Amino acid sequence: MSEELVEAGEAWADDASYRQGAVDLLGVIAYGALTAFERLAEDGRMASELADKVHLATMAAQQVAHFERVREHLEGLEVDVMEAMEPFHAAFDAFHSYTRPKDLLEGLLKAYVGDGFAADFYREVAAFVDPQTRNLVHEVLADAGHADFVVVKVRTAIQADARVAGRLALWGRRLVGEALSQAQRVAATRDTLTSLLTGTVDRPGMDLAAISRMFTRLVENHTRRMATLGLQS
Amino acid sequence: MSEELVEAGEAWADDASYRQGAVDLLGVIAYGALTAFERLAEDGRMASELADKVHLATMAAQQVAHFERVREHLEGLEVDVMEAMEPFHAAFDAFHSYTRPKDLLEGLLKAYVGDGFAADFYREVAAFVDPQTRNLVHEVLADAGHADFVVVKVRTAIQADARVAGRLALWGRRLVGEALSQAQRVAATRDTLTSLLTGTVDRPGMDLAAISRMFTRLVENHTRRMATLGLQS
Repeated sequence: MSEELVEAGEAWADDASYRQGAVDLLGVIAYGALTAFERLAEDGRMASELADKVHLATMAAQQVAHFERVREHLEGLEVDVMEAMEPFHAAFDAFHSYTRPKDLLEGLLKAYVGDGFAADFYREVAAFVDPQTRNLVHEVLADAGHADFVVVKVRTAIQADARVAGRLALWGRRLVGEALSQAQRVAATRDTLTSLLTGTVDRPGMDLAAISRMFTRLVENHTRRMATLGLQS
Repeated sequence: MSEELVEAGEAWADDASYRQGAVDLLGVIAYGALTAFERLAEDGRMASELADKVHLATMAAQQVAHFERVREHLEGLEVDVMEAMEPFHAAFDAFHSYTRPKDLLEGLLKAYVGDGFAADFYREVAAFVDPQTRNLVHEVLADAGHADFVVVKVRTAIQADARVAGRLALWGRRLVGEALSQAQRVAATRDTLTSLLTGTVDRPGMDLAAISRMFTRLVENHTRRMATLGLQS
């Protein structure tokens, strides 16, 4: 084990609740990467142009690389990624079964808006974990060019047919609504994860005002993403 | 450009037909990797166990890495991978639309038997290209553990229900039949690719007896793969 990992491991060992919270954060990100892989592959299947298929395949492969990075990090801490992901299957699978894209545009919007919202939230939580875990979270959540691709595709589609904007704006609202309702479900059952944000007697966290400001930031970022696409949020 | 690539580039520049044949070989392999990615992702979607999904996602990501390796190699020779793949879309897409797996087992068998047969053929052709191209072909066609996975899954399914063996044996025969018929279609239209095998006035190749021996090798390997699965070919 590297010196850095030993250090991170020691920080974790101090506090069982903190440790479980950080494992939860990595577990939810790992499962998110795996399902993102599946959806990007599915988007690629819906794409009619070969260059788009290649782009989406490359993005999908990158999600697998992110999953592998998280798996390795957890292995170094003697945590099985399968177990770490387990608490999040139901919420993710429900979210995806309620929000199946009907075409490539809906798939692209889902990736950009849904994953963007989730990534913002994970980064907020990551402010409260050790530096190694935080760096890993930022690394695997960094966008690698997919946002630009989605923006071009959606704006082009709206230029070709203005009615698309109305349909996609509705779709964006539905995505965020479903995402929030599943996130609440997770929050209600995984207090180890939520207590990373709220803190404990021994550990600082956000008070209610700070949590409210965090939600404001999440919603502002979402609005900005929708506007970038030329969509009302 | 590296010295090696310059050398390979010079070998190619000498003979337009050879050059086009080698580009064809890389183009067909690149398109094969891209469609393999799609099928492995689809197999993952059909898998019910999370560990299987992870394995299939990893294998799918590897196909994207193979595609990238071929794309980079072609770029070094100033060939666009999209153009190199173009002549092979129709045959591949027809093959896949005629052989849609009904379940995970059929998908796994298709990957093992179909891709195994194709890889054997590409390696035969690669004997007639420059060492750099040949090494690349061998590298991207090397199996990275998927065969073992498929063997375990299929054998386990047959042990649980012996009737599975009959159904899969029929499926294996259908796959090879369709693959051969699409390969003939490609061979009939891409004589640059076939002339790599048969040679030209200036370049050695296989005579009819050698081509017949090659087909015997391909069929023997196929039979061996089916037997490894516990299936009649």
